[in-house]
Amino acid sequence: MNAEIIAIGSELLTSSRVDTNSLWLTGQLNALGVEVTQKAIVGDDRERLAASIRAALGRAPILILTGGLGPTEDDVTRDAVAQALSRDLIYSEEIQHWIEARFARFGRPMAEINKRQAFLVAGAEKLENPNGTAPGQWVDLPPAMLIMLPGPPHEMKPMFEDRCLGRLRERLPTRFIRTRFFRVAGMGESDLDQLIAPIYTPYSNPVTTILAAAGDIQIHLRAQADSLAAAERLAQELGEKIEAALGERIYSRDGAPLEKVVGTCLTQRGETLAVAESCTAGLLGGRITEVAGSSAWFLGGLLVYQTDMKLRLLGLDPALVAKHGVVSEEVAMAMAGAVRERTGSTWALAVTGEAGPDPSPGGPPPGTIWIGLAGPAGTGARLFRFPGDRIRIRAFAVQSSLNLLRLKLASIL
Amino acid sequence: MNAEIIAIGSELLTSSRVDTNSLWLTGQLNALGVEVTQKAIVGDDRERLAASIRAALGRAPILILTGGLGPTEDDVTRDAVAQALSRDLIYSEEIQHWIEARFARFGRPMAEINKRQAFLVAGAEKLENPNGTAPGQWVDLPPAMLIMLPGPPHEMKPMFEDRCLGRLRERLPTRFIRTRFFRVAGMGESDLDQLIAPIYTPYSNPVTTILAAAGDIQIHLRAQADSLAAAERLAQELGEKIEAALGERIYSRDGAPLEKVVGTCLTQRGETLAVAESCTAGLLGGRITEVAGSSAWFLGGLLVYQTDMKLRLLGLDPALVAKHGVVSEEVAMAMAGAVRERTGSTWALAVTGEAGPDPSPGGPPPGTIWIGLAGPAGTGARLFRFPGDRIRIRAFAVQSSLNLLRLKLASIL
Repeated sequence: MNAEIIAIGSELLTSSRVDTNSLWLTGQLNALGVEVTQKAIVGDDRERLAASIRAALGRAPILILTGGLGPTEDDVTRDAVAQALSRDLIYSEEIQHWIEARFARFGRPMAEINKRQAFLVAGAEKLENPNGTAPGQWVDLPPAMLIMLPGPPHEMKPMFEDRCLGRLRERLPTRFIRTRFFRVAGMGESDLDQLIAPIYTPYSNPVTTILAAAGDIQIHLRAQADSLAAAERLAQELGEKIEAALGERIYSRDGAPLEKVVGTCLTQRGETLAVAESCTAGLLGGRITEVAGSSAWFLGGLLVYQTDMKLRLLGLDPALVAKHGVVSEEVAMAMAGAVRERTGSTWALAVTGEAGPDPSPGGPPPGTIWIGLAGPAGTGARLFRFPGDRIRIRAFAVQSSLNLLRLKLASIL
Repeated sequence: MNAEIIAIGSELLTSSRVDTNSLWLTGQLNALGVEVTQKAIVGDDRERLAASIRAALGRAPILILTGGLGPTEDDVTRDAVAQALSRDLIYSEEIQHWIEARFARFGRPMAEINKRQAFLVAGAEKLENPNGTAPGQWVDLPPAMLIMLPGPPHEMKPMFEDRCLGRLRERLPTRFIRTRFFRVAGMGESDLDQLIAPIYTPYSNPVTTILAAAGDIQIHLRAQADSLAAAERLAQELGEKIEAALGERIYSRDGAPLEKVVGTCLTQRGETLAVAESCTAGLLGGRITEVAGSSAWFLGGLLVYQTDMKLRLLGLDPALVAKHGVVSEEVAMAMAGAVRERTGSTWALAVTGEAGPDPSPGGPPPGTIWIGLAGPAGTGARLFRFPGDRIRIRAFAVQSSLNLLRLKLASIL
């Protein structure tokens, strides 16, 4: 079963307003086994909105409208629905009395303008609104349903939960949903897709969605069936194939970000981490400490942004730096070793590289990053070449540092 | 002139993903005097998307599509546009060579799958993509224009700015727009609005837009008129009133972020900065070094996340820490003084506080942050109490640290 959502309001067409209602409604609908197949945002324009409503009803059996039910001239949802369905608007004394009673509770008479809110689309049923003056409306158009909800989230959400959810559930075929979720590090999006597209493409159920950020890819599988066991079987079958293809590149199956996965592992082992950051200059430490409670395993570290700080704060040998350059295997290893010694940590990560946009005189091209890792059994370093601008290169460097440690802790490296 | 935007991608129809591209594009279009009259989000479904494209072109002379230009099977934008316009897709050897060259730069052969990205809609012009493999496309359909942009923001934004803005400007009727832009630190959004709403509310032109992030507020004024002088007069009149009300809380009039304002000031003075971070654990250093070239004035610093690191790396007196607690004026000042000494910087910022979500045993409530500042004339510290969750508290702490230094450098503090 599919649904569409139309959010109504010219303010939602500005550069600063996000339609959060549709996100919440999508979550609610998905939990019922309903897919949202299209969304639209339409301004306070009756003709436009009526056309959008007609088009949406031609595509999806469930249409939810939010917004435009207020008392002012630019609240056009009632009129647009009546126009789209070629139905009349009918004045409801019952709704008027209800709005009057609400005003009375706040010791005020009902404003004349609020009478606009007492019009129902012919054949519609009103949906009570305990949190505002705008009643919602439910129009049955068998086999379709059109639901009109107010725009303010604190009115829309309880109205949907209390007045719509049960009714929707009754009319929907019983569907069960099982999901799989993988987060992957250490490969690019196109490499990943080349590897797993042949696996997931033959399946239309589960639906596979891939989201990519710098060095971090999320794979969602969502299986639907008419029994829980069948949905689980579908999710498991495709999930296992993808797991087999990706192996250790999967770092999380429960949504936990990489810094949390690494932290959980260190906590279990009773070990600690410190960092020495040059081109990332704190982003790695900042990322690690997004995890509340990370002080159990993260000690701190050194920001050695200027070359001189690598000597002064970390005590690196000036001859070593002069010989190999700051962006080098030797310096990455020396940084990791020195910060491990200075902090007394079990593990230490070091990042040195060129984040751009321009290369330093005599330095390597932007995107060249050496990551050093020091631990109980010794020190090593890896070279990476990341694409993109300064922001992406630094994000890749942070992600790849954490992934290097993850692989080391899992004895894969 | 009106525009519509269609964001493409099934992941944008989940309950967790916001279409931020259309917000950014709306801001860009508004600045050209173009209103966005409708937006849609369509999944990776060619038929649906083709129908949406046809409908939108029937309503608005400018249609911008974002997303669906990747190399995989579920990237259907090229095909859907061809279908909607009843045009062929034509293979471009030129684009293929360009994609191959991009892969070669990273030392890899082009994946076969990327050939899909070399197809142009007949009559379309390609839009170069320096940040990814997906070229954009521009289709002239006089008097309409259809623009296809990639979905990842770091690819979409530069492509729009570099390849589309100038071309759009040429084709739009001449409206003169003058803007004023202020960035404000050191006050909350509701305090700010209480102060300036009485000033800007009487004006419908300029349009005033306020965007608030943690500790950082942006105020945009946008005046439109049919002559440059008239637009400038409108912008100047309201702009001056707002400047008078906000005074030194305005830190930028050209959009420069706070770290850049501070950096420019330090560069002019030939001075340097170092940091000692506890609860922010690198976020301040990471933020400072978002500015390319910041190594001219930012030296580095120390991440002293665990208490023991404050003694071990910074050499703080254990008795001082034990007496006052790590979140204290004394420790903030000692941290700033110590990192200034160890790095030899002109200025040093230190952050120590409780970011939450839970208070430490015996510690202050989450949101309590001491910021220390050491400079040539001595050391001081300020107490802040920030609202919100861990992420917001840490963002407030970073912003407030930089603002403290800005005010000090301007001799206001």
